[in-house]
Amino acid sequence: MKKTLIAFAALSAIAGMAQAQSSVTLYGLVDAYVGQTSKEVTSTIPGVASAKLKQTAVNGSGQNNSRWGLKGTEDLGGGMKALFVLEGGFQPDTGANATISNQGGGLFGRQAWVGLSSGFGTVSLGRQYTAYDALRGATNMIYDSNFATTSTVWGTGIADYQNRASNSVAYTSPDFAGFSGSVVYGAGENKTATTDAESNTSLMIKYANGPLLVGFAHQREKQVASTVGNYFGSGATVGVAAGPVAFSSTRKYNLLGASYDFGVAKVTGQYNEAKGEIGLTTSAKDKEFDVGVSVPFGAAAVAAGYSRSKSDASNNTHNKGTGVSLLGTYALSKRTNLYTGFLVTKVQSSNAATETKASTFGLGVKHLF
Amino acid sequence: MKKTLIAFAALSAIAGMAQAQSSVTLYGLVDAYVGQTSKEVTSTIPGVASAKLKQTAVNGSGQNNSRWGLKGTEDLGGGMKALFVLEGGFQPDTGANATISNQGGGLFGRQAWVGLSSGFGTVSLGRQYTAYDALRGATNMIYDSNFATTSTVWGTGIADYQNRASNSVAYTSPDFAGFSGSVVYGAGENKTATTDAESNTSLMIKYANGPLLVGFAHQREKQVASTVGNYFGSGATVGVAAGPVAFSSTRKYNLLGASYDFGVAKVTGQYNEAKGEIGLTTSAKDKEFDVGVSVPFGAAAVAAGYSRSKSDASNNTHNKGTGVSLLGTYALSKRTNLYTGFLVTKVQSSNAATETKASTFGLGVKHLF
Amino acid sequence: MKKTLIAFAALSAIAGMAQAQSSVTLYGLVDAYVGQTSKEVTSTIPGVASAKLKQTAVNGSGQNNSRWGLKGTEDLGGGMKALFVLEGGFQPDTGANATISNQGGGLFGRQAWVGLSSGFGTVSLGRQYTAYDALRGATNMIYDSNFATTSTVWGTGIADYQNRASNSVAYTSPDFAGFSGSVVYGAGENKTATTDAESNTSLMIKYANGPLLVGFAHQREKQVASTVGNYFGSGATVGVAAGPVAFSSTRKYNLLGASYDFGVAKVTGQYNEAKGEIGLTTSAKDKEFDVGVSVPFGAAAVAAGYSRSKSDASNNTHNKGTGVSLLGTYALSKRTNLYTGFLVTKVQSSNAATETKASTFGLGVKHLF
Repeated sequence: MKKTLIAFAALSAIAGMAQAQSSVTLYGLVDAYVGQTSKEVTSTIPGVASAKLKQTAVNGSGQNNSRWGLKGTEDLGGGMKALFVLEGGFQPDTGANATISNQGGGLFGRQAWVGLSSGFGTVSLGRQYTAYDALRGATNMIYDSNFATTSTVWGTGIADYQNRASNSVAYTSPDFAGFSGSVVYGAGENKTATTDAESNTSLMIKYANGPLLVGFAHQREKQVASTVGNYFGSGATVGVAAGPVAFSSTRKYNLLGASYDFGVAKVTGQYNEAKGEIGLTTSAKDKEFDVGVSVPFGAAAVAAGYSRSKSDASNNTHNKGTGVSLLGTYALSKRTNLYTGFLVTKVQSSNAATETKASTFGLGVKHLF
Repeated sequence: MKKTLIAFAALSAIAGMAQAQSSVTLYGLVDAYVGQTSKEVTSTIPGVASAKLKQTAVNGSGQNNSRWGLKGTEDLGGGMKALFVLEGGFQPDTGANATISNQGGGLFGRQAWVGLSSGFGTVSLGRQYTAYDALRGATNMIYDSNFATTSTVWGTGIADYQNRASNSVAYTSPDFAGFSGSVVYGAGENKTATTDAESNTSLMIKYANGPLLVGFAHQREKQVASTVGNYFGSGATVGVAAGPVAFSSTRKYNLLGASYDFGVAKVTGQYNEAKGEIGLTTSAKDKEFDVGVSVPFGAAAVAAGYSRSKSDASNNTHNKGTGVSLLGTYALSKRTNLYTGFLVTKVQSSNAATETKASTFGLGVKHLF
Repeated sequence: MKKTLIAFAALSAIAGMAQAQSSVTLYGLVDAYVGQTSKEVTSTIPGVASAKLKQTAVNGSGQNNSRWGLKGTEDLGGGMKALFVLEGGFQPDTGANATISNQGGGLFGRQAWVGLSSGFGTVSLGRQYTAYDALRGATNMIYDSNFATTSTVWGTGIADYQNRASNSVAYTSPDFAGFSGSVVYGAGENKTATTDAESNTSLMIKYANGPLLVGFAHQREKQVASTVGNYFGSGATVGVAAGPVAFSSTRKYNLLGASYDFGVAKVTGQYNEAKGEIGLTTSAKDKEFDVGVSVPFGAAAVAAGYSRSKSDASNNTHNKGTGVSLLGTYALSKRTNLYTGFLVTKVQSSNAATETKASTFGLGVKHLF
């Protein structure tokens, strides 16, 4: 009897500990690689310098952005749960916080939210991924890794979307026979006596069943151009002098994305249309697509992707971008893999007067904890 | 025998783990709400613009400031313990570090200290709450939440106290038949060849027995005005042009606070006198009070608070402030509650020539981990 | 049978938990002291002011730099392991991130790397200690504590070495009959069209057997002076006006270090030569040594150290520095100790025209978690 009691005591102690510890999980991802980056600008525009720079680098976040975070789930009974995530990005090559603009930087700049979930879905408040990003990430080429070309190529013309929204409320639906969706609204909170507040509104609907995932997503970014820098992305001047202009404007993104897992290979594809205004007289429209394929070979896998973008502005300025990616991974365990990646992009702006070629090659290791 | 050994091994393993884990606890609080903020300034002073701004917001820290931290206690034997706390604030709406001046910002800007405790009390070194704050927080209206009006209203005239001191040594006494106290000294460490170092000195004594808590606290902030910004708080110019002035000065705060828990309701009350100098010729004295009541209804609770401040400067400039708060909470568990809060403050400065009205309404969730 | 099963279940549960938890360890060190700092500058150079400043301080990191971090080891099978460390420094007196230049500041500015280890050694990528630092720390006076005089005294003339390298690849060998070594290369990644990238290359070889440790280390810092501030360290102008100069230059450090533990006392000694260039015409060479001894008395220990540096530049400018340290520690547990330390340094620069005396006295507590 004594023994049983001891054993039960042991179990109780364990249960108690498990409970105490369920309140927070410390997790993260460290990704670093040795490689070479190269960038070459060729321009026939007077005053825009042609230049080429190639260098050896030890960089972080080749395959995925390095991060650390705290997260937890609390069972409130009756099928209801409280959830939170606090997640920050960092650069493993210097130890500093992430500063990539799309990541926001700051302590928990990747994600910082608290929410409640039940059978009716999840409502959450804070800084979080947009609904558009949920589909974009799920159907992006080569595992949505940083060797994907989309963030560069789709930035041709109208700048690529903001993947996170601060000051946001999100609703994510439960799964209805394969269908699910989400809506996210981010309040700009920068209203003044003379200008309205910015905002970021997005919605997504998808159907996922077995090997198939297909969905549509929309994002609308209302901006005060003078506070967010040039309306168009870098390398995409559309014949307009760089630098911010003080006016309100709107960018809209419409995305169709799909993936299918054939077992021997998984294929993904995306088609995106972006519309935007610049100043009071000029508007632009981008048409963009990408395709990707990944093939597993036991612990190894090889993936390839191709993307393209074409941007036409109402003042007859045209931009183009293309990109190719390769990524090979080898899993040492469920949490650790080696990888080698190659990424090359080419962007022609101002009716091909300026061409920017960039490439990255890397050999690295990714570790989850 | 074998079974017993296994069971004991299990217990030992648990004991070993428990010991290993007792060295640090990771904890925090995430609080976010959807609401509306409004601010209206009306002024008859030439050059001070009247303005009104109302906007929808998803903000953090409605009920309590969001935070995360590491803390631990080590038993040194003989009743002695080593303790530490490292706690930082963050904004769940953007993921960034807290920047509220009173919180100091920085990685562990809320608390960062190490100390030793025994039957004779606790001595600690680092960045920590002042002794004055210990009583202020314990007897502040509506659970010392951020919907309390005191920090705004009591900042009328002389700026409200600094709640934390860097470079500080603290002594906290044990409980003697209900009586306890603490003393904190923060060294400014900014002495130069021509100016003395700043300092923050505080002490507190309180009597807590069953439903009653009553206490007195004092804080003295010696400052070099040129290094800390305007001597008087924002919205409190006392007829003096804004901007720092290069002279040393002192602010003193004397607080009487009490709370009594009647079971059906808990009431709190505070009376504060603040004295300060501005320049070589002008001094000011503020008289301030607040009262609060909170009533539990099962898992729900409702609290209300009222505060007032009157500031008289030696140059015949007078300021006034009043504020009202309401807070309703509903506990979903011990760690998670919903809340709705309302806060409205009115501050009249420069003999009522300028009036600032501010209000916040929010509906949010607070989660502890 | 049931009981056994329960016991085994308990064991399995523990094993499962242990495994789940082995993925990340949260750890740190908090060190704070009360003390006095004093600095006196005496100069016969016109325009360089003589000054003396003494003040009471509550400072962090008297004995060791305060830090917190995440680290983990994953067993990949076949003797291979994945490892990572993310470690940041902080100031316990203010709660802010460390800003000491050698620490880099930033979230995980102390260490941020991921690597793989096997019987052939360890390869790691990220921000990490240089190989030179490994020997310097192992044989530095009075336990490599912050009361050691070397960082100040050896900065006389040529600035002391950088102890960490960003963007680095490191290889650390296994132990071969007492012999081991490491190589670290840090890529500057700041190549431009007109200047080459900086770099930090270091290697170390040591022999450790029983009470003896002896080794040699080399470090070479290739710098673009305009990006790293004045080539020579502070307090070491070598007759040249302060401020950065735009040219590439190189600093080289060669270190011999040894320690021997006699049981009743442990002695350490180091000899260092540093060579550097300033501008196109001037070069300098520093010869430096230190000795240390530490004597245990039960839970207490007393250590003393002495260091000296002599710098001679090719333009006949000579600098000199000396320093003395004392450190007493008393262990309250394996994780917590009290300490009292004293450190005094004297640096003569510009052929003794300027003399800087600095001293620190402190009484503090250090706590590991």
